[in-house]
Amino acid sequence: MKCFIIKIGGNVLDAPDALEEFLKDFAAIDAPKILVHGGGKIATKIGEALGIESKYVDGRRITDARTLELVTMVYGGLVNKQLVAKLQAAGCNAIGLTGADGNVLPAHKRPVKTIDYGFVGDTTADAVNTAWLYELLAGGTTPVFAPLTHDNAGTLLNTNADTIASVLAMALSTRFEVRLIFCFEKKGVLLDVNDPDSVIRHLSWSEYNKYLLEGAFADGILPKLENAYSAIQAGVQEVLIGDAADLIKNTSEKTEGTLITN
Amino acid sequence: MKCFIIKIGGNVLDAPDALEEFLKDFAAIDAPKILVHGGGKIATKIGEALGIESKYVDGRRITDARTLELVTMVYGGLVNKQLVAKLQAAGCNAIGLTGADGNVLPAHKRPVKTIDYGFVGDTTADAVNTAWLYELLAGGTTPVFAPLTHDNAGTLLNTNADTIASVLAMALSTRFEVRLIFCFEKKGVLLDVNDPDSVIRHLSWSEYNKYLLEGAFADGILPKLENAYSAIQAGVQEVLIGDAADLIKNTSEKTEGTLITN
Repeated sequence: MKCFIIKIGGNVLDAPDALEEFLKDFAAIDAPKILVHGGGKIATKIGEALGIESKYVDGRRITDARTLELVTMVYGGLVNKQLVAKLQAAGCNAIGLTGADGNVLPAHKRPVKTIDYGFVGDTTADAVNTAWLYELLAGGTTPVFAPLTHDNAGTLLNTNADTIASVLAMALSTRFEVRLIFCFEKKGVLLDVNDPDSVIRHLSWSEYNKYLLEGAFADGILPKLENAYSAIQAGVQEVLIGDAADLIKNTSEKTEGTLITN
Repeated sequence: MKCFIIKIGGNVLDAPDALEEFLKDFAAIDAPKILVHGGGKIATKIGEALGIESKYVDGRRITDARTLELVTMVYGGLVNKQLVAKLQAAGCNAIGLTGADGNVLPAHKRPVKTIDYGFVGDTTADAVNTAWLYELLAGGTTPVFAPLTHDNAGTLLNTNADTIASVLAMALSTRFEVRLIFCFEKKGVLLDVNDPDSVIRHLSWSEYNKYLLEGAFADGILPKLENAYSAIQAGVQEVLIGDAADLIKNTSEKTEGTLITN
């Protein structure tokens, strides 16, 4: 059975019309599905209003205690619950989750090596409470994940939404034929970064390596591709990188974005 | 089978030590249980920092659009998810919910009569998604409710935590022997408001009416008692009004607070 795990970020969350369209399309997917969301500009805006500065060390964002409170409020509360309410209105039986809820996704606070990232959680597929997640999906419920996990010792942890989507996909790939979809601001992975029509429609492992040797990929897309192949190597059947506006096509057999397989 | 529905408010939420003790005691309750929380001072504090004024008309609080965002963040995110993470650490498999999650508690926006309360939801026991709630409880999960519902049309609604606790208790009283516990800052209902040891340990309907005729109750406790009797009349087996610090006793047969029965 097919299962879709779909990650959206700021480019959808910050655009009310695009978001509304996306949620309508998402609600209409007639298969088990999970939504994972990132933050968006609203967290920065509210953080600024509260005098919480974004802190960076060597270009990496640091989650101090106040930032953790901020993301718990904004991601775990405002963004998550508004998405749930809107999906319910669209006829999708959504339920908002962090990794702490039902202990569905425990994590470890990232160890301090050269940088102390603060309250940031790293997690793996074997940490996922797959049995409960499966029960929710089997009951027709649609989990909506905020980018938060917990350490099982009472502390929430800020966790990358791409990572959460990936580990959920890996964990569920033993029970479902999973398509993991990363929505971003382009139609897909472009062969020519200046030509929006140059989408690579299909990428196998051998094609990926061929393009990689040719230096065909723009720098910005490389982490996404590496992430996608980690998921594929861990058993995820398909990863798709595409535009949120193409969700209907990208959840069908006639995909518009970049479909990545083994 | 016994089921406990326990409401806590600001006097517990705002006191870290009392809260920790309460959560430890709550986690240890060996029966199906639900926690319902209110807000506490943190919402006011964050609201002030964001420049969101508390608005009142005729002494009643109004929930405008910005206040709704505030309570969604603070109640639905910060307070709720921190409680969930702490309960998980205490070995209680908590899951944070608003009425929108799993459509567990839909409501109606309060109609405008003389006062427009804004985004405030009223709800009733027959609106509760009892079947799903029962499933969660039967699976050993402990729902933790934020004081938020939704209108099934995409909008969250600010809803009184006492009301949520009451309607959940009413809805579940057909499946369980429910004890609905309201935690507040006193040991129980006092016969003499100046004597903390004058707790009325048991109140039946006839005793309640006798005391009422005698004018024995302080004004502040009357709405709580009316609320309790509404629950009893709707089928809830027991309502207890007491101190969060007495939770262990108040969930046993030897109650410390005021036990209200038919």
